[in-house]
Amino acid sequence: MIVIGELINGMYKDAGKAIANKETDLIQHLAIDQVKAGASILDVNTGPYSKDPKDDMKWLVESIQKVSDVTLSLDSSKADVIEEGLKLAKKRAVINSTSADDDKMDRIFSLAKKYDSQVIALTMDKSGVPNDKEKRVELAAMIVAKAIDMGIAMEDLYIDPIVLPINVAQAQGSVVLEAIRDFKMICDPAPRTVIGLSNVSQRTKNRSLVNRTYLVMAMANGLTAAILDPLDKDLMDAMITSDLILNKNIYCDSFLDAYRKR
Amino acid sequence: MIVIGELINGMYKDAGKAIANKETDLIQHLAIDQVKAGASILDVNTGPYSKDPKDDMKWLVESIQKVSDVTLSLDSSKADVIEEGLKLAKKRAVINSTSADDDKMDRIFSLAKKYDSQVIALTMDKSGVPNDKEKRVELAAMIVAKAIDMGIAMEDLYIDPIVLPINVAQAQGSVVLEAIRDFKMICDPAPRTVIGLSNVSQRTKNRSLVNRTYLVMAMANGLTAAILDPLDKDLMDAMITSDLILNKNIYCDSFLDAYRKR
Repeated sequence: MIVIGELINGMYKDAGKAIANKETDLIQHLAIDQVKAGASILDVNTGPYSKDPKDDMKWLVESIQKVSDVTLSLDSSKADVIEEGLKLAKKRAVINSTSADDDKMDRIFSLAKKYDSQVIALTMDKSGVPNDKEKRVELAAMIVAKAIDMGIAMEDLYIDPIVLPINVAQAQGSVVLEAIRDFKMICDPAPRTVIGLSNVSQRTKNRSLVNRTYLVMAMANGLTAAILDPLDKDLMDAMITSDLILNKNIYCDSFLDAYRKR
Repeated sequence: MIVIGELINGMYKDAGKAIANKETDLIQHLAIDQVKAGASILDVNTGPYSKDPKDDMKWLVESIQKVSDVTLSLDSSKADVIEEGLKLAKKRAVINSTSADDDKMDRIFSLAKKYDSQVIALTMDKSGVPNDKEKRVELAAMIVAKAIDMGIAMEDLYIDPIVLPINVAQAQGSVVLEAIRDFKMICDPAPRTVIGLSNVSQRTKNRSLVNRTYLVMAMANGLTAAILDPLDKDLMDAMITSDLILNKNIYCDSFLDAYRKR
């Protein structure tokens, strides 16, 4: 599975402080540590408290790229903030994200074409997040049709069914799992799938346990990628073991170490 | 999910010694501890070293029933050993198991009718364990047809797709997961499903991690029951959390404790 490290996000205390005070070291450590732990993509989000998101995005991308050539997921609700990162990204980046609204997809898919990047698209629109599987699949099909129309390849499109917190939207847990499975049926080759994992455990006790259990279930349903905390060792153990069970890595007795050393 | 405790099995060191020396206390402790940890059914197997399996089965059932009124899964390849347990069982028991061979199903389903018990049926026949999903589903359909023919209700039939060790049959891991999902399509109401979980991790390192990861994946695919070690706390935590995600238990902050106290 593709691990997208979530920790460089101004919403989190450490990164928020680092962004506010322009502490390059801390951001660079977060980058190095996440890559070392198994992330092949790093999410970059200036967070809700940024006073100048465009400038902060620029600074984040530059700081990270001084110490790592990892792929970046440029995460913002504002297209111009994302574009600031795209201009600087040395590798093909991931745009995080567009909704299924037509005008938003026009703007974001155009950026993806212009900068040859991948895109995450959320199955939500102006009327909000659907509470059933069928509407999520309908929005995913609209996203796929639009992406094909605009020349985005399916291997460059990640569809995100939007995981909700289990403590307030418990029935949504299995709805999203089934949506992940159904997205693969929309076309051939299928679009990729991604979830923002930590959302499932918002304000619950046992966050790590809830996160890793949900990740394993999503992987059993064919999930391609997840935005998560790669420094959570139990979570990464569960992810590596799921990849093993799904026959993505060859079995050896030391399969956990072997994965981490690769 | 229905937890079937696996520990009263002569194959395991503790139970094997207890059976050989008729140590009632040890068997009774294994029964009480498993029920306390969440098992609602206990598997009872005299094991491969039993000199008199019928007598040992009789002794095991009597010993357990002196301290617990839990449902028993009478586990033997020999129908007469199973019948020895059925004669004594105070509650509706589970017969573990029949193959998909017609003569074996005739004998075992007749016993199930005679003693009003539930049955576990394995998707294997004289030619062995299938290595693909399709043959497993074909055998499951034959089992279902035979069960219906002999008047066994679907809620009394557990189909077992036979989990194989991941270290020697890695590709079988996901084949069995998809079989669990497909068994539900055979008829409506669907038969139940069960796996002998520990087999997946035979001779691997990190047995508990492999077991709990596989269980969570199987539950994501709709598994009804598993024969497992309920004294593995991490495994039970994963099971309880999976039930929560699948909306089988209502969320509360102390959901792990709440499950254990019920």
